[in-house]
Amino acid sequence: MCDRRRVLVDRVRPTVDGGARPAKAAAGQALEVSADLVCDGADVLAATVRLRPAPSGRSGRRRASRALEAAMVDVAPGLDRWAAVVTPSTTGAWEFEIAALADPYATWLRDLQRRSGAGEDLAVELEVGAAIVAARQAATRDARALRALSLVLRDSGMAQDQRAAAAAAPGALALLRRTIDWSGATVAGPFPLAADRPLAAFSAWYEFFPRSAGARPPHRSGTLVAAAADLPRIAAMGFDVVYLPPIHPIGETGRRGRNNSPDPEADDPGSPWAIGDRSGGHTAVHPDLGTLDDFDAFVSAAAGCGLEVALDLALQCSPDHPWVEQHPSWFRRLPDGTIRTAENPPKRYQDIYPLDFDTPEREALERTILEAVLFWVGHGVRVFRVDNPHTKPLRFWPWLIDAVQARHPDVLFLAEAFTRPRVMERLAKGGFTQSYTYFTWRTSKWELSEYLDQLAHTEMVDWFRPNFWVNTPDILNEYLQRGGPPAFRVRAVLAALTCPSWGMYSGYELCENVALRAGSEEYLDSEKYQYRPRKYHAPTSIAPLLTRLNEIRRRHRDALGQLRTLRLHHVDGDQ
Amino acid sequence: MCDRRRVLVDRVRPTVDGGARPAKAAAGQALEVSADLVCDGADVLAATVRLRPAPSGRSGRRRASRALEAAMVDVAPGLDRWAAVVTPSTTGAWEFEIAALADPYATWLRDLQRRSGAGEDLAVELEVGAAIVAARQAATRDARALRALSLVLRDSGMAQDQRAAAAAAPGALALLRRTIDWSGATVAGPFPLAADRPLAAFSAWYEFFPRSAGARPPHRSGTLVAAAADLPRIAAMGFDVVYLPPIHPIGETGRRGRNNSPDPEADDPGSPWAIGDRSGGHTAVHPDLGTLDDFDAFVSAAAGCGLEVALDLALQCSPDHPWVEQHPSWFRRLPDGTIRTAENPPKRYQDIYPLDFDTPEREALERTILEAVLFWVGHGVRVFRVDNPHTKPLRFWPWLIDAVQARHPDVLFLAEAFTRPRVMERLAKGGFTQSYTYFTWRTSKWELSEYLDQLAHTEMVDWFRPNFWVNTPDILNEYLQRGGPPAFRVRAVLAALTCPSWGMYSGYELCENVALRAGSEEYLDSEKYQYRPRKYHAPTSIAPLLTRLNEIRRRHRDALGQLRTLRLHHVDGDQ
Repeated sequence: MCDRRRVLVDRVRPTVDGGARPAKAAAGQALEVSADLVCDGADVLAATVRLRPAPSGRSGRRRASRALEAAMVDVAPGLDRWAAVVTPSTTGAWEFEIAALADPYATWLRDLQRRSGAGEDLAVELEVGAAIVAARQAATRDARALRALSLVLRDSGMAQDQRAAAAAAPGALALLRRTIDWSGATVAGPFPLAADRPLAAFSAWYEFFPRSAGARPPHRSGTLVAAAADLPRIAAMGFDVVYLPPIHPIGETGRRGRNNSPDPEADDPGSPWAIGDRSGGHTAVHPDLGTLDDFDAFVSAAAGCGLEVALDLALQCSPDHPWVEQHPSWFRRLPDGTIRTAENPPKRYQDIYPLDFDTPEREALERTILEAVLFWVGHGVRVFRVDNPHTKPLRFWPWLIDAVQARHPDVLFLAEAFTRPRVMERLAKGGFTQSYTYFTWRTSKWELSEYLDQLAHTEMVDWFRPNFWVNTPDILNEYLQRGGPPAFRVRAVLAALTCPSWGMYSGYELCENVALRAGSEEYLDSEKYQYRPRKYHAPTSIAPLLTRLNEIRRRHRDALGQLRTLRLHHVDGDQ
Repeated sequence: MCDRRRVLVDRVRPTVDGGARPAKAAAGQALEVSADLVCDGADVLAATVRLRPAPSGRSGRRRASRALEAAMVDVAPGLDRWAAVVTPSTTGAWEFEIAALADPYATWLRDLQRRSGAGEDLAVELEVGAAIVAARQAATRDARALRALSLVLRDSGMAQDQRAAAAAAPGALALLRRTIDWSGATVAGPFPLAADRPLAAFSAWYEFFPRSAGARPPHRSGTLVAAAADLPRIAAMGFDVVYLPPIHPIGETGRRGRNNSPDPEADDPGSPWAIGDRSGGHTAVHPDLGTLDDFDAFVSAAAGCGLEVALDLALQCSPDHPWVEQHPSWFRRLPDGTIRTAENPPKRYQDIYPLDFDTPEREALERTILEAVLFWVGHGVRVFRVDNPHTKPLRFWPWLIDAVQARHPDVLFLAEAFTRPRVMERLAKGGFTQSYTYFTWRTSKWELSEYLDQLAHTEMVDWFRPNFWVNTPDILNEYLQRGGPPAFRVRAVLAALTCPSWGMYSGYELCENVALRAGSEEYLDSEKYQYRPRKYHAPTSIAPLLTRLNEIRRRHRDALGQLRTLRLHHVDGDQ
């Protein structure tokens, strides 16, 4: 004999791979849960969404987390699509399930009204309805109400249409909805949700190199102390997050000079992504920038301005990183005994050794990385921008992110993966809170419309939170190079007002647009290889526009956050 | 520590609900298996599809079923979509799995060629390649070849570019592909496939009422013997299947007269869908049509013409059906003790009692239905057209179809469900071999293009096999009513040449197009309620066109069957 549950539940959303990983949600933000509910025949269905904190998850504030239930409604008649809106109250792991059944009372009532409309005698049908009502189980007060209603339906002293009206009265409908016996329902789920804190769903990022703050090129580096003094300016523009490229010691072996020259001058500071020297690696602060105490003070100063600090998580080492001596097996060696440097044949990056995740000591490597992340969490960092996550095993990230968020559900991860769409998908599904996007290279109206439609109106919203960056230290795109200040204004408007999260790298406000050479997206005199102190208060700065954009964003926060991305027609752009 | 398998396998096709039910295939027909294969970094992947008979399934001819393997190729570079073509050799249950890994040799070779192109010294890299080759495990002959290749790569007496060429020689590539160690591969599956016999994927159906064959209205019914004499005419038009409306005894209680009149004349034969009288029900032959022996002779005569007989499976009863007395609990009763007739309030069908699948004796009901199907299978029937399957529980059909096909994998089921798309989807996913469609109501070019695109170029091909019917005894659509013979020609061309399976109800060749009344799709003097003998050899018959269409279909069988539906631009239609 086959299963008796009549409703089939399909295409449940939001989900990731049928529930294999959590879909994205945000604490306090309304979330639409939907599904195909398919039943034989023509019965009226009843369906409900049940949301509750995940039993094994740690919610931020457990006491404030509460289970809740919402009735689903048929949102696409004829297409069997049902939906309800629920709101997880706190940050952390949640889950939902969907229960659905054919509702005998609602079906009977609809048919009764059709029969009544056709002028049929309703005597037998009212008796049928009375039996349905009388069979309902309920606690004392509802039980009395059910008994009373069934007596009314059977009361041959009352006119049939009066009894039919009693069956359809709001109180009767609520009573019969409340007392549905869900034991015969099809239950789908539970499906996991990760309810991030609100910043995950709505954020404005500002990236800058602290070593340029107060620097005196070519000799003297800027410091975290000087950088802290710049925070009020950034906060005044309305940004939420200040993201710092790696702040760790920088190796000397293979160091790159200005404009990525393989022959550095003595004073060239090297790329911050060539992490580590004998003084320390991923848990150390570059001595030129200051001390760990200076970093703690910087985080406090940021918090004082309403800013959060995001650190760069770049899982690679300079040849001088302590791990190279301490853990020789974490690096892949060539037959000649040397370590293979990072490369994209025939290009080589002599200042960087990749970590070998195929090492037999992978468990120790992964644990050490987790500890490094937790180290910075211990110093007040709750946001990480992950460098090139797509060059590390895809299964590593869910492991790392889950391990961190199980302890600290408020920690957010931004994936810096400019790569193929399916790889970006796997990273986002694997747990990255936000992702860099192709926005930078979408410049014509049709490209932007198509891309925004894809981001905002497909299943991607279940797992992919775009963060639109107008520039990065690696990407000064052709549109900005050619278009000058008007192009900078256009791109800032588009990023800030079409995407719930956006970001810029400092210098953008000054419309810096000189590329290394024609056809390159690299900056001339890139800050990756030298100090670049700036005169931010120049009269040509577009900071007033950025301030205004972040103000508009805050005013329309609900719209931007709810849709996740706004449709392009909300913007009166000049493209 | 996280899972070390680097490749993630996603969006595998063909599948139904991630493998919960078998996807559709046909014995001897090439099938494309595809998936997203997503890996970190930039390694070259190797992937394979493994197809084998399902361990628990019964294949039609077990000895001819063989496992096979096919290498997948990247069919959408940049989109990480891979595919291979496999062909299940026999009818029955099959399954496939996908294995994928990063291929160190292929990755090394690609990088070697890039380095060589950049004029780099290859000494160390050739050593790396030699080590990869030397580490491969293989049986004697391949082991010798691997040893020889690794020696060549290490032979410093040979020029580097000569050694690089040896690494890329076809023999070397085949050897290294053949000796891949799949133990580290990601394996997805197994995913079930139902390999139907070829008729499932390519068929032309002809429906007729045997009681009209040789009938003398209003008194005398036609017979199976007379109907058998008509089979050569049908076969000559090139049809594969003759489908008969129910051939069982017809009830008298509630019988409908001509044009569905509630007041039948004494001679009115009633609707064949009002199944059963005291002489028998679903396993009996209507005495007017003949005997069970006559039916057996009809099936043999059909086979002699190359035709298969399809029976109607209509799970409902006339009030006079033996089950009404034998199994009173199989029918739902009203409070007044009467059985509720079929209805779509306020419409009632007094000649039909629906079966109540919520009966406590559901197991006995379901077993009895299974036995009725197997009864007709025992009389040579291998094709069933199922009447209104969407009014029976959706989970009943997978149970019934699996139970029948486990014994007889060659049995096919056509779902007559003209209902909402999601319900039709669930029926098809549940196991129906073919499905009626919305074709009848898609008459403009854009409607047809859009519908054919959906049927042929979406995931629907994994589970939905459309059968385009130009008319049925219930559906004489407006286009035919108004368009006359040219419309009949157009619709036949469209159905026959855009869909692998098509069908017509007799009378179509005579362009019968008089409706019951304006706005109705019912025929005037519908054959559902009376005998309709026809003069098929009328000079106005479009039988020659139908014959020609079925000839063209056979010639283009591969194209039609492979695409499942042809794109509309293959047809030089006159719409």
